[in-house]
Amino acid sequence: MSRLNLIPAQEAPLAPEWVTTEWMNHKGTLRLADLRGRVVALHAFQMLCPGCVSHGIPQAQRIATTFPDVAVIGLHTVFEHHAAMTPVSLAAFLHEYRIGFPVGVDAPGPMAGVPTTMASYQMRGTPTLVLIDHRGRVRLHAFGRPDDMAVGAAVATLVEAAHAPAAAQPAAEGGCSPDGCLA
Amino acid sequence: MSRLNLIPAQEAPLAPEWVTTEWMNHKGTLRLADLRGRVVALHAFQMLCPGCVSHGIPQAQRIATTFPDVAVIGLHTVFEHHAAMTPVSLAAFLHEYRIGFPVGVDAPGPMAGVPTTMASYQMRGTPTLVLIDHRGRVRLHAFGRPDDMAVGAAVATLVEAAHAPAAAQPAAEGGCSPDGCLA
Amino acid sequence: MSRLNLIPAQEAPLAPEWVTTEWMNHKGTLRLADLRGRVVALHAFQMLCPGCVSHGIPQAQRIATTFPDVAVIGLHTVFEHHAAMTPVSLAAFLHEYRIGFPVGVDAPGPMAGVPTTMASYQMRGTPTLVLIDHRGRVRLHAFGRPDDMAVGAAVATLVEAAHAPAAAQPAAEGGCSPDGCLA
Amino acid sequence: MSRLNLIPAQEAPLAPEWVTTEWMNHKGTLRLADLRGRVVALHAFQMLCPGCVSHGIPQAQRIATTFPDVAVIGLHTVFEHHAAMTPVSLAAFLHEYRIGFPVGVDAPGPMAGVPTTMASYQMRGTPTLVLIDHRGRVRLHAFGRPDDMAVGAAVATLVEAAHAPAAAQPAAEGGCSPDGCLA
Repeated sequence: MSRLNLIPAQEAPLAPEWVTTEWMNHKGTLRLADLRGRVVALHAFQMLCPGCVSHGIPQAQRIATTFPDVAVIGLHTVFEHHAAMTPVSLAAFLHEYRIGFPVGVDAPGPMAGVPTTMASYQMRGTPTLVLIDHRGRVRLHAFGRPDDMAVGAAVATLVEAAHAPAAAQPAAEGGCSPDGCLA
Repeated sequence: MSRLNLIPAQEAPLAPEWVTTEWMNHKGTLRLADLRGRVVALHAFQMLCPGCVSHGIPQAQRIATTFPDVAVIGLHTVFEHHAAMTPVSLAAFLHEYRIGFPVGVDAPGPMAGVPTTMASYQMRGTPTLVLIDHRGRVRLHAFGRPDDMAVGAAVATLVEAAHAPAAAQPAAEGGCSPDGCLA
Repeated sequence: MSRLNLIPAQEAPLAPEWVTTEWMNHKGTLRLADLRGRVVALHAFQMLCPGCVSHGIPQAQRIATTFPDVAVIGLHTVFEHHAAMTPVSLAAFLHEYRIGFPVGVDAPGPMAGVPTTMASYQMRGTPTLVLIDHRGRVRLHAFGRPDDMAVGAAVATLVEAAHAPAAAQPAAEGGCSPDGCLA
Repeated sequence: MSRLNLIPAQEAPLAPEWVTTEWMNHKGTLRLADLRGRVVALHAFQMLCPGCVSHGIPQAQRIATTFPDVAVIGLHTVFEHHAAMTPVSLAAFLHEYRIGFPVGVDAPGPMAGVPTTMASYQMRGTPTLVLIDHRGRVRLHAFGRPDDMAVGAAVATLVEAAHAPAAAQPAAEGGCSPDGCLA
């Protein structure tokens, strides 16, 4: 597989705030805004999606282990079999699979079956990995099974940029602040 | 791994009839007695048991593919997280994982959490593979992750015996009938 | 994968004696005739054949572990890159890969590159697994990557037949002796 | 596995020029100096080292695929079984395993068995992955089986640094030139 192409910083859209009904592995509500300044790996999954269980979730766990300073966040984006993947079932799933990172339950949406955050991020399905840089911009949107080496490269690139001296940032990026991003 | 040791036919207990509340991938109730004359591979699992998902169920599917004349039967033996693994969730699980063999839902039992059939077969946990010969006797009881080569050997041995001419059967085996097995 | 079809005993050709130039992991010359009475798993490989290294040889090692009473025999059938796969290189290969079963070096043949035993067994390439029953007949000839469950089933079937009482053998098989097999 | 720690640029030693007797997949002699300006992934292996065949070489191939601008270079550092791993055997190995990147044969050394470049890089064994930055400094020295995500992160970090504007480089790094590195 070739390298994952990050969206250039100056073209990247600001990540929408996620909308959730509850959180597991985290007390209270975790907002994207709380994570500004950190690189975020948002892993959207369904607990009964085989590709999520065999590939996506283990990869998210490896991101968490490899990059302790990255915020790995799960998002349970149920768009089918709603009655089968309730929060009660999800809680047991997280327990049995030893998933320790915070997982939010995506809020039901107006569209047929597709939950709110999944729609606002325009996700095609699950698993989807979204990388958000330290300034809150969506830099990668990967559906399916990107391989570990390419994911490691993409995350590291964002982590490096987050640590780079501000002077190295092009002025054009100045439109983005913790409060928002001006076009 | 070394070979799985089959329980000798003359020492093998008659398999208890399973007790179920409903069946999936099968119309009506499927009774063990209906399968007499065939070798049965009974795979006990829980849909949120990681070892079942990654190892046990794929192995059961390979048994079904490799041995078309063997009856591969799933048994959903939920002994924890009962609210998380309801029949509704199980149905979605079977659909998403493309599981085509019949699956029975083990009936709740009097013991704390352990369902009826699981208790009567004295299973330690999930996944458990039970091999029942063509005369209804339990010949193998394997908890955990037996490897494919050993499982293939065990199943083939029972299939061979089922096809062997009756004359080759030791007289001592005559004590077993569909109704019971005399020591 | 479906089950491997064993050649029926009464149709199976007698396995040709192998012709080798030297043996490793065995003192002196090991002849097929020495193994009569035992089931033989003959694994033909080349040390620089990727499919042999990743699949065939590990599978042969699992046969040896699973079936202690089966004679697992390697045969180094070099039909290309002869200068690259000399006995000196083979010895290092066996050492590094911890291969403990006997390995014979197939004798050069008159045909372009194809060694003698490989030709007499009409092998298509490597890896090839040949199963020989306890009466010296070729019962399976599998090129490529048969899966473990099917191989386990095939080996077990031959082992069972080897242990079956003689009375169960069809009279027609009586034509086979250590010296040959009469149609 | 946690992230691989790169040696900080200002502490990293200049990579010694490799000493080879011949090259495969490359015409003429390939010198490290020829690659200055590019990130180099030097993969030291032995063709009969199981960990190299199953892990190291496939990982080097994935580096080459994921990072087209990185120079992936193999180095055949034979320190045992010398007669078994000759250039003739190596050429067949590279052909059979479809290895397309340049591979140099490390020159015999004065120490018992250990070849020259392996000694100058103070490698412990094979497989060893050495990452050299665009200014010729050894930034990573990993023996064994680092995982893909961590390797992807390390390579990407060096690639990013190679593309960063010169102004972002600390002045202290100016001490390194193609001819040497001043403390």
